[in-house]
Amino acid sequence: MPPEFDLIGRHFRALAGPAALNLEDDAAVLAPPPGRELVMAADTMVAGVHYLPDDPADGVAQKLLRVNLSDLAAMGADPLGYLLTVSAPSDTPDAWFAGFAAGLGRDQAIYGLSLLGGDTTSTPGPVTLSLTIIGHVAPGQAVRRRGAKPGDEVWVTGTIGDGALGLAVSLGKLTDATGFLRRRYCVPSPRLGLPLAGAVSAAIDVSDGLLQDLGHLCRLAGCGAEVEAEAVPLSPAARAAGPDWFANCLGGGDDYELLLAVPPGKGEALADECRLRGVPLTRIGRFLAGEMQVRVLDGKGRPMAIAHHGWSHF
Amino acid sequence: MPPEFDLIGRHFRALAGPAALNLEDDAAVLAPPPGRELVMAADTMVAGVHYLPDDPADGVAQKLLRVNLSDLAAMGADPLGYLLTVSAPSDTPDAWFAGFAAGLGRDQAIYGLSLLGGDTTSTPGPVTLSLTIIGHVAPGQAVRRRGAKPGDEVWVTGTIGDGALGLAVSLGKLTDATGFLRRRYCVPSPRLGLPLAGAVSAAIDVSDGLLQDLGHLCRLAGCGAEVEAEAVPLSPAARAAGPDWFANCLGGGDDYELLLAVPPGKGEALADECRLRGVPLTRIGRFLAGEMQVRVLDGKGRPMAIAHHGWSHF
Repeated sequence: MPPEFDLIGRHFRALAGPAALNLEDDAAVLAPPPGRELVMAADTMVAGVHYLPDDPADGVAQKLLRVNLSDLAAMGADPLGYLLTVSAPSDTPDAWFAGFAAGLGRDQAIYGLSLLGGDTTSTPGPVTLSLTIIGHVAPGQAVRRRGAKPGDEVWVTGTIGDGALGLAVSLGKLTDATGFLRRRYCVPSPRLGLPLAGAVSAAIDVSDGLLQDLGHLCRLAGCGAEVEAEAVPLSPAARAAGPDWFANCLGGGDDYELLLAVPPGKGEALADECRLRGVPLTRIGRFLAGEMQVRVLDGKGRPMAIAHHGWSHF
Repeated sequence: MPPEFDLIGRHFRALAGPAALNLEDDAAVLAPPPGRELVMAADTMVAGVHYLPDDPADGVAQKLLRVNLSDLAAMGADPLGYLLTVSAPSDTPDAWFAGFAAGLGRDQAIYGLSLLGGDTTSTPGPVTLSLTIIGHVAPGQAVRRRGAKPGDEVWVTGTIGDGALGLAVSLGKLTDATGFLRRRYCVPSPRLGLPLAGAVSAAIDVSDGLLQDLGHLCRLAGCGAEVEAEAVPLSPAARAAGPDWFANCLGGGDDYELLLAVPPGKGEALADECRLRGVPLTRIGRFLAGEMQVRVLDGKGRPMAIAHHGWSHF
């Protein structure tokens, strides 16, 4: 048997759910949950672009899975399974694959999903990982990016900026003795299971930076937004980095929190529901009629200049 | 707007079906066809590993899609849509993306499916493409690799070896004035739409080489098989290459024909059905009780030594 099959047998077969047919077949066969719509997304991570080549393999696997789970979270969908393709240099140590599979296994248990299928190939380039996530949602209940209205409030889950500052810590540009920021950068927490359907006008996950992702909601809604700088929830570790890092918090990516457009009067009840599920929700601004631009206001309501408006992976 | 969004807008939005929500959202939302099971597979292609870096981009796109469609074909499933991730060097010319999207568009029209979603990222390495195909099949009717029985006949669609010889032509090791072999290598024909359910015991697509893929069916069935060398259908171009290339025809990959285990007495009727759909079907051997090995017999029934038994991508 060729090495590819050994690799699958040693590391990936244990992750396969019933639909994966023991990874023996050309494809998985999945009976969709009756009366539900399917939600599907795919994200790629490249060593040296989306993570540092010496990041532990289990954390890389968890980030890959969680970044995709975050896309389901933004649609208000529940996870079902995933397909995975791994391109790796042929001298990649077996221990790397073992660690990678261990990270996937840990998160499969946490989030209740399983491997459906995939492919492993060699590459002369960096490790390149691609994951397609499959989830499900009640018909017509998927939350969209399009739909924010002037007057809606801007709310966010969790804290903003930890991802960007965690990257800065990884690169040696910032210190954080607690390790919190780097953990948040390496292993984000997808905000699954929140009761968004019917409660929000629009949602997006904060992957490219708060201001850029808010800009996406504005562009699709044909309106603008303003954010109160002092309302943006920061973790103690992000606060400890000091005000010089605040622009990075708003402009950097990798938070994987949810950014929500919430009709006026509905935010507090939603926040209570989210808090019951262990997820803080904070109002940070509002959508405005007029120009499709995002403004940040200081404590006195004056527009602030924020240099870096987000991150493009291309 | 960052360049990634420009790229999606310029080249990929026109390929998106209704479920893709205009590629504006975090994920696609797909209502599964009522009363059907979903069939899903993912395959990766890396420039310099699975295709030659200067192969035309439209052909690369078609091969990527068709290789995945071939996995659906092997399960007897019909295509629905696909998710695509593209990692490319940041200096990849726009014309490459235009050609790539044109190839996808052409095959979407031929095979009746559409783009559901995906991701584009930069990479310091070679272009790395990953595609997840989504199809559907009647409940319980997916054809498996497992299920061949001693006494079943071995049948194949189309002609065998064109893929391997087409690669040899691409590498300058073989000449073929007709261009047929190279076309077969670059743009395979997935054998979708054949009435396999109920007619075959097992199926696999020939991607790693006839003998290796037949070995997979044997391993899963716990039996052996023999192939009559003179019965293996060769194209005129493969025949013209001469007997020295015959081992490559049996051992090389990239044919994307279907290899079928057919219960005795059912082959001719299935072959008639396939011929009506324009696909020749040829009996080339049989499954045998006993040792899990694949033997090739010459015209006098004597075992032949075939050096190269297939291709592993890792």
